[in-house]
Amino acid sequence: MPFDVVEATQRVEEQIGQLSRLRSEERPGWTRQVFGEPYRESREWVAATMRDAGLEVHRDAAGNLVGRLAGTNSSAPALMTGSHTDTVEGGGRFDGVVGVLGAIEATRSIRESGTPLSRDLLVVDFLGEESNEYGLSCLGSRTMAGELTAADLNRRNAAGRSLGSAYEAFGLDPSALLDPARTAPGPLHGYVELHIEQGPTLEKEGTQIGVVTSICGIERFVAHFAGREDHAGTRPVADRHDAMVAAAQAVLTVRSEGCGAPGVATTTHVRNRSSSPNVVPSAVDVSGELRSIDRSWLTGAKRRLGEQVLSASRGYGVDVDFDWTSDNEIVQAHPRAYDLVAATAAELGYSWRPVPSGATHDAVHLASLAPMAMIFVPSRDGRSHCPEEWTDAPDIGRGVHVLAETLRALDTARL
Amino acid sequence: MPFDVVEATQRVEEQIGQLSRLRSEERPGWTRQVFGEPYRESREWVAATMRDAGLEVHRDAAGNLVGRLAGTNSSAPALMTGSHTDTVEGGGRFDGVVGVLGAIEATRSIRESGTPLSRDLLVVDFLGEESNEYGLSCLGSRTMAGELTAADLNRRNAAGRSLGSAYEAFGLDPSALLDPARTAPGPLHGYVELHIEQGPTLEKEGTQIGVVTSICGIERFVAHFAGREDHAGTRPVADRHDAMVAAAQAVLTVRSEGCGAPGVATTTHVRNRSSSPNVVPSAVDVSGELRSIDRSWLTGAKRRLGEQVLSASRGYGVDVDFDWTSDNEIVQAHPRAYDLVAATAAELGYSWRPVPSGATHDAVHLASLAPMAMIFVPSRDGRSHCPEEWTDAPDIGRGVHVLAETLRALDTARL
Repeated sequence: MPFDVVEATQRVEEQIGQLSRLRSEERPGWTRQVFGEPYRESREWVAATMRDAGLEVHRDAAGNLVGRLAGTNSSAPALMTGSHTDTVEGGGRFDGVVGVLGAIEATRSIRESGTPLSRDLLVVDFLGEESNEYGLSCLGSRTMAGELTAADLNRRNAAGRSLGSAYEAFGLDPSALLDPARTAPGPLHGYVELHIEQGPTLEKEGTQIGVVTSICGIERFVAHFAGREDHAGTRPVADRHDAMVAAAQAVLTVRSEGCGAPGVATTTHVRNRSSSPNVVPSAVDVSGELRSIDRSWLTGAKRRLGEQVLSASRGYGVDVDFDWTSDNEIVQAHPRAYDLVAATAAELGYSWRPVPSGATHDAVHLASLAPMAMIFVPSRDGRSHCPEEWTDAPDIGRGVHVLAETLRALDTARL
Repeated sequence: MPFDVVEATQRVEEQIGQLSRLRSEERPGWTRQVFGEPYRESREWVAATMRDAGLEVHRDAAGNLVGRLAGTNSSAPALMTGSHTDTVEGGGRFDGVVGVLGAIEATRSIRESGTPLSRDLLVVDFLGEESNEYGLSCLGSRTMAGELTAADLNRRNAAGRSLGSAYEAFGLDPSALLDPARTAPGPLHGYVELHIEQGPTLEKEGTQIGVVTSICGIERFVAHFAGREDHAGTRPVADRHDAMVAAAQAVLTVRSEGCGAPGVATTTHVRNRSSSPNVVPSAVDVSGELRSIDRSWLTGAKRRLGEQVLSASRGYGVDVDFDWTSDNEIVQAHPRAYDLVAATAAELGYSWRPVPSGATHDAVHLASLAPMAMIFVPSRDGRSHCPEEWTDAPDIGRGVHVLAETLRALDTARL
């Protein structure tokens, strides 16, 4: 039985509608954050959906939901596909979800085809991919790759609760999280993830499938501006050392650096450490990030930002210190896995193009465990992480089709 | 016995040191906020200090500490002087305190002079003059002037507690606060307040006494910037509707408006309503204020800011809405009370000059009850609302001297 793209499209579309109803009703958009109640409920639903597609389901030590379709040779390194079902606050219905439900559907089609794979196929709903209140993204895939640290488990949210306790309350043993013997997935032959593009390129060009070349590196900064406290009613403006003014200038500098660049630059938060309404701001923290798949641009932009912001701040009598942390390095798709996705899309008669990924994904961490590739489908108007996020069902169907056939091709490919 | 400026200076200096020890030790600077524990304790100390100076002390229905020195004709409208002893978080030792301890010392000197006043002299430590977590300043003087409202009592702090409950926990009856029969001080002949300048003018010119011409009006704004949510990793920078960028531009526009102007303009807070680290900011609130003693500048600056910020924001594809609230109107010193202070300073041989007040004071509210004047003494480097706030003891002594002699002159003056 060949892949029935119409039936697959309908089923995934219906499932997306069902899953979208499991959300925090008092929050904007489709909010389903890791460790929260709707998330807990939604994963019961995902597990049931996996079982309905004929998968054996278990939750691994890292908290990932894993569905297994046995192959004819279970001793061979397995294939893995998946994504995540948590969302950001006020997020949409497609980010991550398309990759999980699409993987389940691709697996169903393989099972129902009557031609089994030789390798086991593992479908994973990774735990908490989105950045959370503990400031750590990709919890499940990070842990599976053995990259979670004891320091990470000590991260605290605004209420002072540790990430470790959040895991515990979610029914997971924090000590197991750091034990590779319990979190590693066993040998993998390849990992493929289907995802919405979250950017405008595919839609703008009318291209149906994006084949990811590489996933951006992220450099996050917190810049601390130190000025001088003064009474805001009595100190003449020209005579101030106003940390808020220096911070505002920095926001504009960050924007300039990202305009027309081979990367993006964003300031997300500006925080005055004092709550006083009548004191000239003296301690202001500015948080933001740079993303690019071009290492030389990232390095240059960090240096230029540091220099320009320092120089402008000194003009206002304000000191500045940058703290940089690399959230993740640039990760390339595996060249032969990339070729296999592209060849599959072409064979199926879909238009495709290479695309970089400006967002990070569970695939970043899986790339250390297996040859990795990603399949993108178009996002309407490039919107994502917002309630307006949308991908047309036929686009999703084509993505699932490419995923299913790529998995079949991967099964026998030498990488 | 004439006023002994050396002895008065020493006593007030020592008392400032004693009072400064009553502070929140876990907070920066000299923090003693209204309703808090060190504040409660400090007011016991202020009441004892008043009694030691020969005053009869009571707490009025508004929570003000009132010390009374009876005159020979208690049926005549009284004189009032005072200030406050609460501080901002991370504040200093002089703001408000100099006016309360100076008033007590001036009263002691009058009592000990052997020549009593004809009028009663009331020394007031006004409740909570600084802006607090409920966003309302001048609690005690505002209530005394009958300007506190039921809506004010419903203001809530970040924890959801109402101002009314804070009063109750402090041992005050909230219903009495709105009853002028219980909060009004009785007929007043005049009000004089001694205060540190909190700005640089007097020190820079080497002038000993400032005679306040008027107290600035304050126009506070919250500007709401509405852009568009997008994934911060995938949306090209030039294609964003970034509310944080528009907000940053507004901070610089506010600064430009206040540079070299007959007033000041300050942005104190920039708040992204979303906590997400990877979403282009779409809803950002900017809070700030304009202050001036020039009504036409205030009106023009409000208009210009609105126009310029709107135009710049539209350039970024961002909408903006300004909410303005008048915190207080411009208040003029009473012309003859002003003249009396100036003449007294001159007679005592101190250098003096007219000064505007960029900070607001309890005097703003007392001006509706009595002819009002203010005496300023120099602030080192103009610093205030910070731990470095400082006024030399001899400057304080001269201020107390002018206050004492002004009160004596006021006692018999026709205003």
